[in-house]
Amino acid sequence: MKKLINDATQAVRESLAGLAVAHADLLRVRLDPTFVLRADAPVRGKAAVVSGGGSGHEPLHAGYVGPGMLDAACPGEIFTSPTPDQIAAATRAVDGGTGVLHLVKNYTGDVLNFELAAELCQSEGLKVEAVLIDDDVAVKDSLYTAGRRGVGATVLAEKLCGAAAARGLGLAEVAAVARAANGQARSMGLALSSCTVPAAGKPTFALGDQEMELGIGIHGEPGRQRLPLRPAREIVELMAGEVLGDLPFRRGDQVIALVNGMGATPLLELYIAAGELERVCAGRGIRIARRLVGNYITSLDMAGFSLTLLRADERLLGLWDDPVRTPALRWGA
Amino acid sequence: MKKLINDATQAVRESLAGLAVAHADLLRVRLDPTFVLRADAPVRGKAAVVSGGGSGHEPLHAGYVGPGMLDAACPGEIFTSPTPDQIAAATRAVDGGTGVLHLVKNYTGDVLNFELAAELCQSEGLKVEAVLIDDDVAVKDSLYTAGRRGVGATVLAEKLCGAAAARGLGLAEVAAVARAANGQARSMGLALSSCTVPAAGKPTFALGDQEMELGIGIHGEPGRQRLPLRPAREIVELMAGEVLGDLPFRRGDQVIALVNGMGATPLLELYIAAGELERVCAGRGIRIARRLVGNYITSLDMAGFSLTLLRADERLLGLWDDPVRTPALRWGA
Repeated sequence: MKKLINDATQAVRESLAGLAVAHADLLRVRLDPTFVLRADAPVRGKAAVVSGGGSGHEPLHAGYVGPGMLDAACPGEIFTSPTPDQIAAATRAVDGGTGVLHLVKNYTGDVLNFELAAELCQSEGLKVEAVLIDDDVAVKDSLYTAGRRGVGATVLAEKLCGAAAARGLGLAEVAAVARAANGQARSMGLALSSCTVPAAGKPTFALGDQEMELGIGIHGEPGRQRLPLRPAREIVELMAGEVLGDLPFRRGDQVIALVNGMGATPLLELYIAAGELERVCAGRGIRIARRLVGNYITSLDMAGFSLTLLRADERLLGLWDDPVRTPALRWGA
Repeated sequence: MKKLINDATQAVRESLAGLAVAHADLLRVRLDPTFVLRADAPVRGKAAVVSGGGSGHEPLHAGYVGPGMLDAACPGEIFTSPTPDQIAAATRAVDGGTGVLHLVKNYTGDVLNFELAAELCQSEGLKVEAVLIDDDVAVKDSLYTAGRRGVGATVLAEKLCGAAAARGLGLAEVAAVARAANGQARSMGLALSSCTVPAAGKPTFALGDQEMELGIGIHGEPGRQRLPLRPAREIVELMAGEVLGDLPFRRGDQVIALVNGMGATPLLELYIAAGELERVCAGRGIRIARRLVGNYITSLDMAGFSLTLLRADERLLGLWDDPVRTPALRWGA
């Protein structure tokens, strides 16, 4: 294993220190319990949006803290859920008096710890709502999940909810945006290589020289099947077919598309996949109205990518277009 | 080799097609000869800024086309210089009547082909100036270079010159900004793994399980030496020491810092390096006034990173802060 780290046990903490100094205009890092919050938190009167989960998926979540997106992010250790005290501390710190939305990827540990934190904060008089993200069509249950896993839709929901909250919508309305986003989004991932968790020191799984794993999870959880490597065109057709067929998306739909790199896949390749996705969607009468291409929810140094499509009405597109200013997503501000 | 491509000979062209559709609001792609230009080019009366070079370094250069940065980018095949006809076509297409600056990374093929294109355009009556970027302190001459290689300072020079041109400065003044940026910038890279060029199908070089290559080039050209893998802290001290000692940077200087991923290095690790760089600079009385952390000039799927420091006066910092709106760099607009 070759990593640009000092000590596997300190990697998350040291990375957050670098993040804090690199983006001091946008965010602050608090330690023990550890969370990242907007530099201007709490924003009085605004519904707050908090997310979190295991580290190793950067820029998710801390890279999305800032005006128009998250008020706070709770980073666990690598591929490890944040603790209830981290989540509760973040929730208290960003509550602007009108309540806090928890956006929770559907992994058993995350769900449990966000629930415990919400109960704790509610017992103190805070308003907390939680929405689960479970957009991965690959598998029903998985290594760390009952039901579907939460993947790329998390990024989209964080943006949409952040915009809704910035517009002044109340907690219930922001939560409704989260449910709408998750309900209209579907994803699938593919690995060309394993990731290597620093503390483990070796690849999480093995893939043959000409193999790919379809439906991979963002922690390297098993997908649907191993297949011989195929050209990008066929891979995207296969994955987009599964994603489109699941909701199902229909002729005339307009969507927000995320072509997401898993960490080690060059942007050159992601744009090839993006071009193929456009072709597949156009062929089915589906219009990609907005798109992101790049590393947005990664799996350390895994090679591979995922596709997320979110069926968006004009209201969601409007929220998407609202200004956002975070380390990893920024426009209009 | 596992790549998300269809055909190695078509990878650049297909990737550009994906880029074009993903960023239709910002840019256009022209084929045969191939270049990428601002959607609103030519901008009448504005000095134009054109760069280019081999592909495989994405988002460099095409990801920096847009208001406040490049007017056009000329992508060659992977790790292959663009041809004079590509460069000449781009130059003609974006000339707004007041001339075109060529920002050229110092590689023999790039230098030659940009020169030929400039001569051709000048013979047609266009004003063209060229500035070489040669910021890499690692080696004096290299596999594809006489003198020092052009690396991370290219990104910074493209931003600064784009801002100068957007302010309405004339060609000579924009070229002076480029020379100032290059003259004040120094860089060094490090590889933890080789990249694999699709057409070659195998890694460009071999590195042992516990080895790193200090001073690596962005095409995998040999660096200064191979060393046993060290903690991030020691690696950054070593590299920053070489960079700081070269100009030399001095106590009281303020700098723009780029902590750049080579393609396969997780953002989590880059932020660790960024934190270490802050510590090293602070210890020497050097203030990092602005910073970028992420994949800005890559080497396909190489694991590793590079550091670039640019000594910036208030004028350069002002240009840095000006709005920019491109696929890969965006703020204030």
